[in-house]
Amino acid sequence: MCRWNAFFGQPILIEELLFRTQHSLIDQSLHSRLGVETTNGDGFGVGWYTPANPTAPGRYRSVSPAWNDANLRDLSAHIEAPIFLAHIRATTGTAVQQTNCHPFRHGRWLFVHNGVIDGFHIMQRELMLAVDPALFSGITGSTDSETLFYLALTYGLDEDPIGAVERAVAFVEATGRTHGIEHPVQMTLGFSDGERLYAVRYSTEGRSRSLFVSEDAATLQALHPDNPRFSRLTDEDRVVVSEPLSDLPGVWLEVPESTAIVIQKGADEQRPFRPSPGDERLAAGNGASSTAGHAPTPPR
Amino acid sequence: MCRWNAFFGQPILIEELLFRTQHSLIDQSLHSRLGVETTNGDGFGVGWYTPANPTAPGRYRSVSPAWNDANLRDLSAHIEAPIFLAHIRATTGTAVQQTNCHPFRHGRWLFVHNGVIDGFHIMQRELMLAVDPALFSGITGSTDSETLFYLALTYGLDEDPIGAVERAVAFVEATGRTHGIEHPVQMTLGFSDGERLYAVRYSTEGRSRSLFVSEDAATLQALHPDNPRFSRLTDEDRVVVSEPLSDLPGVWLEVPESTAIVIQKGADEQRPFRPSPGDERLAAGNGASSTAGHAPTPPR
Amino acid sequence: MCRWNAFFGQPILIEELLFRTQHSLIDQSLHSRLGVETTNGDGFGVGWYTPANPTAPGRYRSVSPAWNDANLRDLSAHIEAPIFLAHIRATTGTAVQQTNCHPFRHGRWLFVHNGVIDGFHIMQRELMLAVDPALFSGITGSTDSETLFYLALTYGLDEDPIGAVERAVAFVEATGRTHGIEHPVQMTLGFSDGERLYAVRYSTEGRSRSLFVSEDAATLQALHPDNPRFSRLTDEDRVVVSEPLSDLPGVWLEVPESTAIVIQKGADEQRPFRPSPGDERLAAGNGASSTAGHAPTPPR
Amino acid sequence: MCRWNAFFGQPILIEELLFRTQHSLIDQSLHSRLGVETTNGDGFGVGWYTPANPTAPGRYRSVSPAWNDANLRDLSAHIEAPIFLAHIRATTGTAVQQTNCHPFRHGRWLFVHNGVIDGFHIMQRELMLAVDPALFSGITGSTDSETLFYLALTYGLDEDPIGAVERAVAFVEATGRTHGIEHPVQMTLGFSDGERLYAVRYSTEGRSRSLFVSEDAATLQALHPDNPRFSRLTDEDRVVVSEPLSDLPGVWLEVPESTAIVIQKGADEQRPFRPSPGDERLAAGNGASSTAGHAPTPPR
Repeated sequence: MCRWNAFFGQPILIEELLFRTQHSLIDQSLHSRLGVETTNGDGFGVGWYTPANPTAPGRYRSVSPAWNDANLRDLSAHIEAPIFLAHIRATTGTAVQQTNCHPFRHGRWLFVHNGVIDGFHIMQRELMLAVDPALFSGITGSTDSETLFYLALTYGLDEDPIGAVERAVAFVEATGRTHGIEHPVQMTLGFSDGERLYAVRYSTEGRSRSLFVSEDAATLQALHPDNPRFSRLTDEDRVVVSEPLSDLPGVWLEVPESTAIVIQKGADEQRPFRPSPGDERLAAGNGASSTAGHAPTPPR
Repeated sequence: MCRWNAFFGQPILIEELLFRTQHSLIDQSLHSRLGVETTNGDGFGVGWYTPANPTAPGRYRSVSPAWNDANLRDLSAHIEAPIFLAHIRATTGTAVQQTNCHPFRHGRWLFVHNGVIDGFHIMQRELMLAVDPALFSGITGSTDSETLFYLALTYGLDEDPIGAVERAVAFVEATGRTHGIEHPVQMTLGFSDGERLYAVRYSTEGRSRSLFVSEDAATLQALHPDNPRFSRLTDEDRVVVSEPLSDLPGVWLEVPESTAIVIQKGADEQRPFRPSPGDERLAAGNGASSTAGHAPTPPR
Repeated sequence: MCRWNAFFGQPILIEELLFRTQHSLIDQSLHSRLGVETTNGDGFGVGWYTPANPTAPGRYRSVSPAWNDANLRDLSAHIEAPIFLAHIRATTGTAVQQTNCHPFRHGRWLFVHNGVIDGFHIMQRELMLAVDPALFSGITGSTDSETLFYLALTYGLDEDPIGAVERAVAFVEATGRTHGIEHPVQMTLGFSDGERLYAVRYSTEGRSRSLFVSEDAATLQALHPDNPRFSRLTDEDRVVVSEPLSDLPGVWLEVPESTAIVIQKGADEQRPFRPSPGDERLAAGNGASSTAGHAPTPPR
Repeated sequence: MCRWNAFFGQPILIEELLFRTQHSLIDQSLHSRLGVETTNGDGFGVGWYTPANPTAPGRYRSVSPAWNDANLRDLSAHIEAPIFLAHIRATTGTAVQQTNCHPFRHGRWLFVHNGVIDGFHIMQRELMLAVDPALFSGITGSTDSETLFYLALTYGLDEDPIGAVERAVAFVEATGRTHGIEHPVQMTLGFSDGERLYAVRYSTEGRSRSLFVSEDAATLQALHPDNPRFSRLTDEDRVVVSEPLSDLPGVWLEVPESTAIVIQKGADEQRPFRPSPGDERLAAGNGASSTAGHAPTPPR
């Protein structure tokens, strides 16, 4: 059910993280250790920000397994970026096609998801209905993950990133409950606007997919003791991963259950992630009012 | 903007129609003569019915151009069928992916479309809303064509095939008019339930894409004078094509504007195709009522 | 390093073997139990013979993993054949492309290989040189497996199938030894001319990849107790597999080391497989003489 | 039969040349004006050099038509390079696969070809035999173009680029003549080692595919009057194209028949391209001697 990596810090080549670590994401595409599925071979994607083009992130997605994609090796050896997100996919049923590969993108946002919306095929129509009509035609694939992203955009990702995701998740959970689904949401999320990198670990049942963040620059340097790029890294640089890239003890901090982290210049933030039941009612009203073809009232 | 072919009659190899004619569909993928675009290289598909499996049609779709797909040559040389539909795609903007390739399929139905719903990106949400919620999760791609197919299913394709398509088109036209779109629908359609082959030529503006049907067995035999398969064909056998497969005069009858034809055992039928403005109001009501999350009242 | 299945007998749908067994080949593409690699996700292929076209086998190959290829499900549910071979690939380094997917085909022959020619990148030029110049341009991919197939064709596959493969293997072993390679050949092979199905288990070191054959009709019926197709099978019908399709005890016979089997109408055959060192000198002479641009002396 | 573009000069985004011109290469993939084929939809590739990695060029190749590849748009909008070559393919028969897409690459070299080796399927074995055995396993595809590249490498591309290509072409012509082929070589070539950009226009019959070079910075600025990137270009910057990117008179100089050009810092060079018959005998000896498994005597 997917694995992902994200980087925030001084510009590095994408391959440093994707290929040149002990248990890299590419290795995880064949042999995940902590995932529900050991094989993540249903496509992949990588998105990145460049200083020259900070509000229009680049992206490369492919339906090939990451381990055998010749272009990925080349591109990751030539593209250097201060922020990037990479994702390998194991489909839970939807088609293997580029438009279903993460990261999803809208404006300056990139978004990756590991997990599942349980009962999505039952809820899909209702969830899509709640998406801001002005955003609707931006949905090009058919996954639960992309729908969740568009719900987060609808709920104000631009203005209040963590809050918007909390409201989107609350809406999915409320919708799921009306269909008798016990645990609608299972997720770790990574997303960025090119300025900050956000990561969330959450599930309705409180048993979420694994998520780790590197502790400090020493972490990264320990991964690459001979790499001159890493030797100049500082404690501002961070890696977020679905599962550790090495067996070195002490370098990976597990993100706690129901927690959001914000990685940014200056001090990072960590806060509880609490989908609030009150918010989702706005969403329901939102969906209803939009049926007349008007844009929904901004949810907040 | 796409080309298609369909066959109804005694079982023949698919390659007889797709490859072994003077101006075959494969040739049209590179050099269409009558199409809006000369190149139809954005994927293709072929669907067929077999006597052993009459209600579960087979399908092969690919994002490769038809002219360079090695599998298509092999498969069409080995699959024999009494009814099949083949389609080559030139996208009008949506992604090149298998789920956007025709024929679309639901239950025993196969469906191909040449043309466009003008302003689809504006209307998409409203049109998808009008699809029966019980069918909604069957939509796996993002094209105007697949949405039109699901609207036709919603409006009763099983019970009244031509009527259901008339009502679906009427609904699209009504929706388009509310957005100020002058000519919302441009189409030729081919669809089948495994018993009959239906073809429709229609456009809101009354200037539709070309569509032709073979006159009689002599037509097909003239295309393949040395082919023993064709020499045993009878006047029951029919070919429907976006553009003629040969320059032979007199063998291809142009389907008139705003016309539906039904090809079947016994006498074929031809009738006017008239999207009736009265019907689409049911659809509008349908869409509105469905916003509360309930299934729409069956449109008839 | 690949897995394969082959069937010989009364016509059955390909899906009966590929999808509808307890531990099917498709399941093995994700979770092989006996293979060197657990994942076989670097493309696949299936080839089959039809009574209507017995000397021109059909083939479908794809670079997608078998487990997520939508077309494979459709095709295998609609194609019925008395003989077919299916193969899932785990590349040992060569490109993931259709021309590297098995089965390879030449004239009426289909050929699949599980294993490796050790040191192939060192020997490739010499091995290709030994291929009959008249056959050379038929090589369209870059694998060791295809080269082995063309060597077998060069050494007389048409006239003496098992003997030709023995001579081809002897030549590869002799060539490998000149480069100091200890164990040049590791293989199980499946091949057919549309009349008989051949299978070989062999490796230079005498520790070959696994290979099994079904014992009798009861075997297949035990796999599919409720399947009417299988209930009418007879003891003529055989399945050959890289690893068992079920845990049922007693139904799968392991093919012994260094053994070839011939499955055919009437009694099947089993014989030792012995690459004879004497033969390979002819091959060396063959390669040398061909450098002047002449066709090699037929190896026998 | 393919089209290509190359750029040499100050770093620009690849999209400036590939997408943002009046009659861009992407436009030519659908509607070539001067090509033998109007459609070049059998894959494409782009290779580039970066200042950070001047001896290991990057590359992106795909079997999709260039016009519908979503990744190409993204990548070319984010990759900036002082030298790059882009190629769109129309196959003359060999498989549509990434390993057959240009540019081919070996070490620091990138190489693109428009044209054909006539009778290649007859000559392929002989031509491949003449490739330096130490280079042989680098050939991963099956095209005439890649074989020509490896012959040029064999004949000393590193030491004497234009001379090596002359000798390679002389060898192909000599080989072709032994098979009665009248006009074995038809080509325009573009190649680079990251320091210089080379372009050749040549055919045995003296009627070569078109090739043009931009005259000076004013040329490029005229293509992009409003583009700030181009306004700072100098007369050092050059574009080489199979067919002009605009209808502006006077900006495109046709490269004469049988001519090689060298674009570099300082004054560019132009010289006759003369495959010398004397050289090819070395090649013949080369091929013969290599049959014993030894490396050929360096051709010079």
